[in-house]
Amino acid sequence: METRLKADSLSTRHQAPGTNTVAIIGLGLIGGSLALSLRQHGLAGRLIGVESNPAYARRALELGLVDDIAPDLAAAVAPAGLVVVAVPMDAMLTVLPQVLDLVTDRQIVIDVGSTKANLLAAVADHPRRRRFVAVHPMAGTEYSGPDAAVRGLFEGKTLVVCDAEASDPAAVAAVEALFRALPMRVLHLGAADHDLHTAYVSHISHLSSFALALTVLEKERRGEQRIFDLAGGGFASTVRLAKSAPATWVPIFRQNRENVLDVLDEHLHQLQALRALLAGEDYAGLSAALAHANEIRKIIP
Amino acid sequence: METRLKADSLSTRHQAPGTNTVAIIGLGLIGGSLALSLRQHGLAGRLIGVESNPAYARRALELGLVDDIAPDLAAAVAPAGLVVVAVPMDAMLTVLPQVLDLVTDRQIVIDVGSTKANLLAAVADHPRRRRFVAVHPMAGTEYSGPDAAVRGLFEGKTLVVCDAEASDPAAVAAVEALFRALPMRVLHLGAADHDLHTAYVSHISHLSSFALALTVLEKERRGEQRIFDLAGGGFASTVRLAKSAPATWVPIFRQNRENVLDVLDEHLHQLQALRALLAGEDYAGLSAALAHANEIRKIIP
Repeated sequence: METRLKADSLSTRHQAPGTNTVAIIGLGLIGGSLALSLRQHGLAGRLIGVESNPAYARRALELGLVDDIAPDLAAAVAPAGLVVVAVPMDAMLTVLPQVLDLVTDRQIVIDVGSTKANLLAAVADHPRRRRFVAVHPMAGTEYSGPDAAVRGLFEGKTLVVCDAEASDPAAVAAVEALFRALPMRVLHLGAADHDLHTAYVSHISHLSSFALALTVLEKERRGEQRIFDLAGGGFASTVRLAKSAPATWVPIFRQNRENVLDVLDEHLHQLQALRALLAGEDYAGLSAALAHANEIRKIIP
Repeated sequence: METRLKADSLSTRHQAPGTNTVAIIGLGLIGGSLALSLRQHGLAGRLIGVESNPAYARRALELGLVDDIAPDLAAAVAPAGLVVVAVPMDAMLTVLPQVLDLVTDRQIVIDVGSTKANLLAAVADHPRRRRFVAVHPMAGTEYSGPDAAVRGLFEGKTLVVCDAEASDPAAVAAVEALFRALPMRVLHLGAADHDLHTAYVSHISHLSSFALALTVLEKERRGEQRIFDLAGGGFASTVRLAKSAPATWVPIFRQNRENVLDVLDEHLHQLQALRALLAGEDYAGLSAALAHANEIRKIIP
């Protein structure tokens, strides 16, 4: 059984699409959404899940995210051509080496983690390092768990492939082809660059949103109904990310601590500069600063 | 002509719907969207615009936002049952008293401004004060000008009516009925309370977003293409408001300066507290803080 399934695996070239067995370790927002995408595009024949939370495991089966739940990593990994590790960043540091311990030189392992430098350092000397392709699909929502899995989450988004030179070229090509079929754009970055840029374009947005939520909750302790009545689209859009799970985000901030602190300090500096302009009633200066901020239009049209 | 149109005005009780002439002073996002909503719901027979920017005036006619552009305030106000003042908050302080100078005791004037305390103080002793109903439709986007006008902008949103006791009760009732038809919910607040709450739920979100954009622009000076490639939904949602026009927002921050500085100080405090937890590697504390921030779910489901 396992032998047959391995022969169907992704790592076998020229195979017919749709016959792969894929193991997904962690059936939350990202793992669950990837399961849906792979199924939708005929990129996974059989989907096997591993999930440490029994309620999530049951729910993933009910939702049809996976065909089976494996009792442990070994049972999930053995028949899989592709193993996706989609657990929070703290668990990732222990689960990824365990998965690499289990794979042969015909299987491929990917993570989908939000930070890379520490993780890649942790597996740098692993004998199966070249079977591992580090990727970060730049997509998500503020929700978590299998019920948060949504179709099309990755469509049109960017997949960052990190330190591809440390992976087997055929494995990289197979993984890129898989994600391009969702379809996603593929971008290559070194792990350190990845962590720096994601601090700017993702991690600081989350910290800012958490802090905005805390600000409003603090100032409006007795006025929740009032906020609810008044909160418009602008407020909802800036505090949306504050609904995100601490179990997801604390490990990300921890793994990317130096970059996040650096960007956060710049953000505090910018807020304090705007504050000084307003406090000093320098409205021409404030206007010039906001006009400069408007240049973000070039980036987010 | 003017006499006939006045007889059709909103201030005439028991009139047939759809026969009112409405003057809209300022044909930007809010004035233009309100024109579309009033037309859509048959609440305005004829729409007359006044617009200081000639390009905006032409565009508003091309887009059919209004039927005519009046050469000056007097020409627009004379035939109108309802006069909507929808100019930026700095212009509002001079235009609203000018409009009140022009109206009879059968016409109604509303502003749609984002701050109220200074504005209401500026017209407190005007002989036509009771013809003026101060309202704030809690809706908007990051775009501005007549091209930003969108249908349905106000649908399902909240209209705040401020210091209604200073207005003629029949005028308040007519204005509320008009906005309820869009449909909007109506909430009454004192001007000071309005300015305090909007600082929390709107103004701080904009300042935070402007500062986030400046942070990213500063840190990624040479990497705009990289941000563009990597920026996901979370980034777009938190920096979206940074596209907003300084000409709109500087006057709002100026008029609500004390409240905005107060809320901004709380926000800086919350960001610094999160920073201290991360810098000190107090991940249990950071997790507890983010879990507290998650309570914003009660407010924005």
